[in-house]
Amino acid sequence: MTETESNVYDVVVLGAGPVGENVADRTRAAGLTTAIVESELVGGECSYWACMPSKALLRPVIAHADARRTPGLRHLVEGPLDTAAVLAHRDDHTSRWKDDGQVQWLESVGVDLYRGHGRLDGPRRVTVEGPDGERRVLTARHAVAVCTGSRAVLPGLPGLDAVKPWTSREATSAKEAPGRLVVVGGGVVGAEMATAWQGLGSKVTLLVRGKGLLPRMEPFAGELVAEALTEAGADVRTGTSVESVTREDGTVVVVTDGGDRIEADEILFATGRAPRTDDIGLDTVGLEPGSWLPVEDSLQVPDVPWLYAVGDVNRRALLTHQGKYQARIAGAAIAARAAGTPPLTEPWGAHAATADHAAVPQVVFTDPEAASVGLSLAEAERAGHRVRAVDFDLGSVAGAGLYADGYKGRARMVVDLEREIVLGVTFVGPGVGELIHSATVAVVGEVPIGRLWHAVPSYPTISEVWLRLLEAFRDS
Amino acid sequence: MTETESNVYDVVVLGAGPVGENVADRTRAAGLTTAIVESELVGGECSYWACMPSKALLRPVIAHADARRTPGLRHLVEGPLDTAAVLAHRDDHTSRWKDDGQVQWLESVGVDLYRGHGRLDGPRRVTVEGPDGERRVLTARHAVAVCTGSRAVLPGLPGLDAVKPWTSREATSAKEAPGRLVVVGGGVVGAEMATAWQGLGSKVTLLVRGKGLLPRMEPFAGELVAEALTEAGADVRTGTSVESVTREDGTVVVVTDGGDRIEADEILFATGRAPRTDDIGLDTVGLEPGSWLPVEDSLQVPDVPWLYAVGDVNRRALLTHQGKYQARIAGAAIAARAAGTPPLTEPWGAHAATADHAAVPQVVFTDPEAASVGLSLAEAERAGHRVRAVDFDLGSVAGAGLYADGYKGRARMVVDLEREIVLGVTFVGPGVGELIHSATVAVVGEVPIGRLWHAVPSYPTISEVWLRLLEAFRDS
Repeated sequence: MTETESNVYDVVVLGAGPVGENVADRTRAAGLTTAIVESELVGGECSYWACMPSKALLRPVIAHADARRTPGLRHLVEGPLDTAAVLAHRDDHTSRWKDDGQVQWLESVGVDLYRGHGRLDGPRRVTVEGPDGERRVLTARHAVAVCTGSRAVLPGLPGLDAVKPWTSREATSAKEAPGRLVVVGGGVVGAEMATAWQGLGSKVTLLVRGKGLLPRMEPFAGELVAEALTEAGADVRTGTSVESVTREDGTVVVVTDGGDRIEADEILFATGRAPRTDDIGLDTVGLEPGSWLPVEDSLQVPDVPWLYAVGDVNRRALLTHQGKYQARIAGAAIAARAAGTPPLTEPWGAHAATADHAAVPQVVFTDPEAASVGLSLAEAERAGHRVRAVDFDLGSVAGAGLYADGYKGRARMVVDLEREIVLGVTFVGPGVGELIHSATVAVVGEVPIGRLWHAVPSYPTISEVWLRLLEAFRDS
Repeated sequence: MTETESNVYDVVVLGAGPVGENVADRTRAAGLTTAIVESELVGGECSYWACMPSKALLRPVIAHADARRTPGLRHLVEGPLDTAAVLAHRDDHTSRWKDDGQVQWLESVGVDLYRGHGRLDGPRRVTVEGPDGERRVLTARHAVAVCTGSRAVLPGLPGLDAVKPWTSREATSAKEAPGRLVVVGGGVVGAEMATAWQGLGSKVTLLVRGKGLLPRMEPFAGELVAEALTEAGADVRTGTSVESVTREDGTVVVVTDGGDRIEADEILFATGRAPRTDDIGLDTVGLEPGSWLPVEDSLQVPDVPWLYAVGDVNRRALLTHQGKYQARIAGAAIAARAAGTPPLTEPWGAHAATADHAAVPQVVFTDPEAASVGLSLAEAERAGHRVRAVDFDLGSVAGAGLYADGYKGRARMVVDLEREIVLGVTFVGPGVGELIHSATVAVVGEVPIGRLWHAVPSYPTISEVWLRLLEAFRDS
């Protein structure tokens, strides 16, 4: 290892996923010289092993289910999807795991890319150990942004390595549908991958330790998704843990805590995420390697004013879009401080990621889709708000009945009774994925209920559930 | 004709479509005795001959088109829709043109239904000529609400009656797909019915007098819809008027102003609407029979304080959902005035239909869908706002590319530069129908652009176009 370069930048970004890319884009746009360091593919987890491939797998499954619920169309779609075509489509959407396009984009915005493993080396200093064996030193005049994201966590089961279990990476990049797939974990990744592979021809068994799926959403979300997965042919077992897992002659054998034995071709563990901060030199700046990095609302790490932690690593919301939001804010805050301008860190200011606390949206691309923003009823109550929640059966909305025969779904609106504003909304049902942004605007805009009555949903759309929720609130 | 009854109510509503039903519901809920008069089916045009059947016809066509754009699914859906199944489904959604369910609902909310033709007969008095030949007199203590809606207008072509042309009623209730259908008119009804019947097996020729389709929306809406209709096999001819139309041995023969001769099995005129006010006794209260009825924002007819005109008849917005909005406001205003409470008629007040001026949403259920709310760029400029419009190619949004292969669409946001709020938004593309409500909330809530940056769209949804529009505005 030889040290051949020492370069000075205004900003150094560790990690070139969507979050790092957005920080770099914003600091460059503000005229700050910026370097970005990436040890794998530019574009990150989301582009190659998460959002992008998972949605490329899921959209045909959901469209297939929708078609089967459409009069006049269902006779055509009784047969299975063409799984090979779906996988080829997924390969297109991941650029076949090549990052040329993203590298080109970095060049076009004037960000210097350093390939290799980046580590902090004391204040404002980053070393990059390149694939060529060379070691480069980068110095940041103003800020270093850690955007290294998270990785899947595997449970501590003896002999698990030999089983070669899937994580989200293998589940989104698999080259064929396994005949039988056990999915462990009922969160978003577990629910989505169970939906995708069941729809693509696998026989899925979903093992969920807790009482239900999607535990961070309103309880009916997980209930409706579990019901639909079961109807689609998956075997959903809640309150079930894995006691042991082995691979015998190629076959995965799972034994549950209830003593059930399940055989499968592959097993996916979707059981949580850990920050990718274990080997990035946090110890050189007084922080704990392997820890999540809590931040202020401008994404600054407390007591380390030149250090920003953006995206999954700060554990605020492990979602690409929310990380990109933080990235825009962090980039702007870095630029403001570099220019000596006081940052606008009041709530909803340009340099405060206020939405992280109040309005994180999420769409789970299952069938039915589950979408939420803001606080669930339980979260709002825990936070001490005086609230009322109103529910409505989405299947009773005219537009929903027209969208799909036998439409099943549910909506909930959580209202702050002091301020008469909406704190949270959850929609579960086919086709609600694009509906949630209306709720995001309402929550973020703190639009009073009285004003929301003037926001007329078009007839007959599923959005008319808004009217029903307002009526339910008025009459409750 | 004998006069057998004379009944006194607080409120009398003329017309039991969705608008009349909603006025009556609100006045009843406020404790006012309410009668409603209907000469046809309770539920009105929308339930039997407009929104409901048209969307029941369109949804399978759109789902079919979506399926054909979905990798892994398209090999299944090359064949045609089962038109008979779609028509049967349409029949279900119109309750086979029976209004028992709606009558039951009126009873359940305590509204008295009078079947027959209602006419004003001087101030606060309505006569009903029943199907039984009896004449009933209703007196309204507080208010009469005219909710009689509109009807299709046929052009004054000689001999047209003998051709038996379709209007929107026949187009939405037809018992089979005509082999060849000429559609005259490029507005919403023309565009939707051309889409529906082309998708259900007819060979459609669409004749549009003006330069393009959907003339009340941003120009690109009509362009994209015309392009897609043409790709679907329809013959779209703009700048074309009908010179003559005859029916010869069952075949419709159209001659255009350009001298073209087109043969068809049916012809639909979708060339405008007229108010159903010609025979409702307007002359007995000093108003012009057959005229539209302009109203104040509480839906009161100026100088006739006991008279309200709600829905299509006031010509503010010929849309069911906007009529229902007006109905809720009119019902509440009637109740407030009856109670001697000053109505809240300031902008966005509970008794002012402010959204009629600023935020009328509309979804055109074509393929692609076209959805808009608020002011178009041209409208905003005409209204004297200092504005900037930003556009974005919807096909470049990651969520759109995942939704459909080869996604084509476009979005426009019109921003008021004085107040930095959104005045209008248009989305055109597959799957945007549920997206427009986010814009409606933004326009109605007058959410500042700076705050909208905190409304994060979920990745990867089509809603992420919001981020692209905000970026385009920032960088413009």
